[in-house]
Amino acid sequence: MYNVLYGTAVVRTLVAMTRAKARKPRAVLFDVLETTVRLEPLRERLVEVGRPGHELELFFARTLRDGMAYTLSGEAPPFRELAAAQLALTSGHTLSAGQIEYVLDGFTQLPLQPDGRRALDLLAEAGVPAYGFTHGSAAVLEQALEREGRGDRVVRVLSTREIGMFKPPARAYHWACERTGTRPEATALVAVHSWDTSGAARAGLLTGFATRLEGGLPAIAEPPHVTAERVDEVVTDLLALPD
Amino acid sequence: MYNVLYGTAVVRTLVAMTRAKARKPRAVLFDVLETTVRLEPLRERLVEVGRPGHELELFFARTLRDGMAYTLSGEAPPFRELAAAQLALTSGHTLSAGQIEYVLDGFTQLPLQPDGRRALDLLAEAGVPAYGFTHGSAAVLEQALEREGRGDRVVRVLSTREIGMFKPPARAYHWACERTGTRPEATALVAVHSWDTSGAARAGLLTGFATRLEGGLPAIAEPPHVTAERVDEVVTDLLALPD
Repeated sequence: MYNVLYGTAVVRTLVAMTRAKARKPRAVLFDVLETTVRLEPLRERLVEVGRPGHELELFFARTLRDGMAYTLSGEAPPFRELAAAQLALTSGHTLSAGQIEYVLDGFTQLPLQPDGRRALDLLAEAGVPAYGFTHGSAAVLEQALEREGRGDRVVRVLSTREIGMFKPPARAYHWACERTGTRPEATALVAVHSWDTSGAARAGLLTGFATRLEGGLPAIAEPPHVTAERVDEVVTDLLALPD
Repeated sequence: MYNVLYGTAVVRTLVAMTRAKARKPRAVLFDVLETTVRLEPLRERLVEVGRPGHELELFFARTLRDGMAYTLSGEAPPFRELAAAQLALTSGHTLSAGQIEYVLDGFTQLPLQPDGRRALDLLAEAGVPAYGFTHGSAAVLEQALEREGRGDRVVRVLSTREIGMFKPPARAYHWACERTGTRPEATALVAVHSWDTSGAARAGLLTGFATRLEGGLPAIAEPPHVTAERVDEVVTDLLALPD
């Protein structure tokens, strides 16, 4: 199992670890949770099962922390298993198994972010292929797109579950680039999380950071190639880069 | 910088990646934040600067998530820089630089956990050397021990800051074992975080998990060698293992 991170990572990190030049991307990877879909309906479900609404952010942050921790120690379980464990723990073990399932089922009912929807439309108009790229289930974005009649907006949703890890090791981005058939320096990662664009930039990808969620770029982050408030503005700026 | 995780990790993960046999440890590494010291005074400081108290858990979880994310993408900044960035972000950029410093200064004023204090006393009585082991500043535990007249209770506090990473890669635990001069299978990691004991177990260390914080062992976690509610009970059980 340790091969997942260490074995192949060593070879792959040699592929592209220099910063990509700011050029118009040939393919775009969209982070899913928070960047392309809204998590708010999960808050309603938390409240329905008797938990305070502000636990959504805590539950989500801890689930990502755990996914990254297990990635660092060798292999990550699927997102849903980590999320179920965190719901139990964060609620102080007050939720029944059925209530936990009910909250987690909300992940397949999430709506698109308005700026994420516009961003995908812009890319379709420009003829640049878009992909979802998530540690979670591919179904989250697939079902959101289907419900809004936009199933054609992404070529495919890629989940790092297939390689037993969470973002952001270089290995994860390079695996995604292999799936899209574009080289890292010609592939853009778009996200509202600065740790995600930082990881992608370090892995040699183009990066577009939308400040909508974090309110600005933290000093610790790698500089993204493009920064704007909204995801659609980020895509507009990426498409305006020189060929 | 990528050598930090990938270069040396490959060699070191060969050192001890099989599960340690349950034997009495020759040295014990104590996780610091939440396991050995209490974070509660930070909540009071958050409230003093006008933030809701429940943001303590969110701020802390996101700081760890970010530290792990930057570790996964090559190198982690110091804990304090990550924590400062997260305080700014989590507060919606409502805190002044001075208020952020005020909250962060609270880390050097944290008291010992009562069960952590008893655990350190038990190890001193048994003549087994204890070490602090943290991603944060070594000063957090050093100052807590000094204030309580227990500066002699740990040989040294080890911070993964020295190797530019956060726990839990195998490399981090093996680095700590090198510093203690004991082999991984003779060194125990004691923590209230199951992702930490999982990482240590995967790295070939002995592990003691106290359920005080998480309320039980999640199904996703590696089985610890010893599990009890309190940290002192965990140490008692570790010391009772066969020589």
